[in-house]
Amino acid sequence: MAEERTSTVDVLRVTHEASSRNDDLLAVEEPLEIRVAWSAGGEQREKNISVTMRTPGDDFDLAAGFLMTEGLIGAAENIDAIRHWGSPNVVRVGLRDGIRFDGSKLDRHFYTTSSCGVCGKTSIDALRVAATPLPQATAIDSGLVYRLPALLERSQSAFRVTGGLHGAAIISSGGEVLCIREDIGRHNAVDKAIGALFREGRTPLRDSILMVSSRAGFELAQKAIVAGIPVLATVGAPSTLAVDLAREFNLTLLGFVRDGRFNVYAGEVT
Amino acid sequence: MAEERTSTVDVLRVTHEASSRNDDLLAVEEPLEIRVAWSAGGEQREKNISVTMRTPGDDFDLAAGFLMTEGLIGAAENIDAIRHWGSPNVVRVGLRDGIRFDGSKLDRHFYTTSSCGVCGKTSIDALRVAATPLPQATAIDSGLVYRLPALLERSQSAFRVTGGLHGAAIISSGGEVLCIREDIGRHNAVDKAIGALFREGRTPLRDSILMVSSRAGFELAQKAIVAGIPVLATVGAPSTLAVDLAREFNLTLLGFVRDGRFNVYAGEVT
Repeated sequence: MAEERTSTVDVLRVTHEASSRNDDLLAVEEPLEIRVAWSAGGEQREKNISVTMRTPGDDFDLAAGFLMTEGLIGAAENIDAIRHWGSPNVVRVGLRDGIRFDGSKLDRHFYTTSSCGVCGKTSIDALRVAATPLPQATAIDSGLVYRLPALLERSQSAFRVTGGLHGAAIISSGGEVLCIREDIGRHNAVDKAIGALFREGRTPLRDSILMVSSRAGFELAQKAIVAGIPVLATVGAPSTLAVDLAREFNLTLLGFVRDGRFNVYAGEVT
Repeated sequence: MAEERTSTVDVLRVTHEASSRNDDLLAVEEPLEIRVAWSAGGEQREKNISVTMRTPGDDFDLAAGFLMTEGLIGAAENIDAIRHWGSPNVVRVGLRDGIRFDGSKLDRHFYTTSSCGVCGKTSIDALRVAATPLPQATAIDSGLVYRLPALLERSQSAFRVTGGLHGAAIISSGGEVLCIREDIGRHNAVDKAIGALFREGRTPLRDSILMVSSRAGFELAQKAIVAGIPVLATVGAPSTLAVDLAREFNLTLLGFVRDGRFNVYAGEVT
C-alpha cells in the first residue's frame, strides 16, 4: 500500500456536451512521520522530528534528504540505519553511536506551517481535526461551476502578473463573490478568505463554494469542512486523501474546474 | 513594506533569439509568526503557534483563519484583539478573558512540514539555516537550460497522468540525469532527490543543477544551497525571498524555464 504512488478513483466527468463516469488516476497523499533515534551520554533518545504529507515511495531518501537539507544531519555516515517503524507511514532514522543530535533545539518553540493538515496535531491518529461532518452532500448547479474560474480570475487579476500567487474565493450559491484573497501559499490564501468572513461572524459558511486556483490536498479539504463550506472546487487535481476526506465528511469536491469542464470526486451536480 | 504583495526585481530574459534586461514583478514571500495570548487561572500566557511563509497583507485574516481552520479557536467572539507585535511579520492574537486555549496540546510533540524553510528553527531570525554560501556564482550554458524541461519531463512521464505530482531532477552540467524523484509536495520531491544522492555520499553536489517542475520559494533555494547545488531552475516563478537568498548565497536561480525561454534571477548564463 505504502508504495502506491497513484490510485484510481471513480469520477464523474462533466462538460457542456455530456457527463460520464470514468476512472481517474490521482496522486496518493499520505502523512509520513520522521523519527530520529540517537544516544546521548549513554542514554537512548528518540524524537518525532516531522510529519509531512507526501506521496509514498522513496521514504528513506525523503527522511535523509529532509534531515540533511534542514541542517539536522551533516553526513550520510552519521546514519546507522533507516527503516520503517511499525507503520509504512513512519520512518525511523537511527544515528551511529557517538553522533550528536541536538533534538532539544527543536522543541523550544512549536512551529507549524499551514501547508499541511497535520501541524498542531500530536499524532498521525489525530490527523483529522475534530471536525463535524457537513450535514449532507450538497448538489451543485453545473451552470455555476462553469462560471467559477472566471469569477476567481476576474477578482485576482491584479496579481496574476507575477505568476506566483494563488487565489481563493468564497462564492455564494447565487454566484456572488463573498471574499477573495491571494497568497504565495494556497493554504494561506484559503485561511485569509475564511478568516476574513470568520472575523465578521459569518461562519459556518453554509450555502457557499470555496474556489481555489491550485490543486486540492488534504489540508484544503479539511479547512473547507471546518469552516462549514459544503463545496470545494479547484483548478487543479485533488489528492487521494482529499477525496477520502470529502467523501467521509460530505464535502462536494470538484477538480480540474477549467476550460468549460470539471470532474466530480465527491457529491453531486445538477 | 509588509503590505507590499508584489515586488520588482531586475531579470535577464533569455530566448533563442535574444536576451534582454527587464524588470520583473514577483510575489513577495515573508515569514509570518502567529502568537496567541490568553489567560489561564489568572495567569497570562503567550505562545508562538505557527510560522508560515506568506505574502504580506490581510495578516489578521490569515491569523484568525489559521486558528479557526486548524480547530484552535471556535468563534470570532473569543478573540479580543489582533495586532502586529513589534514587527510587521509577527501577529499576536489576544483572546478574551475566560476563553480557554489549550496551548499545551501543541508542544507535546514537535511537528514540521518540509514545505517551509522555517520549521525547525526557533525564531524568525534563525530562518536562514546555517548554510555556507556557494563558492561563487555559477555561469550556466544556455543550451543546457533549454534542454532541462525535456530532461525532467521525460523521466517523470509515468506520473504526469495524475496532474498532481511535482518532479525534481538533479542533472549534471553535462546533461546527465543523476536522480529524479516525484511527490505531491515539491519540497518532498526535492528532499527525495537530494536524499538519494546524499545517502550515496555524493553531496555536496557541486557541478549540478536542480530542476523542479514547480515555483521556487525560499525553501527550495535553501535546500539547493545546503546540498551545495550551484543552480536551481524551476518551471514556475520564484518568490522575492528565493531571489534574495540566491543572490546572497551565490546560487544561480532560473525561473520560467519552459517553452524555449527562461529568466535569470541570480547568477549568469553563457
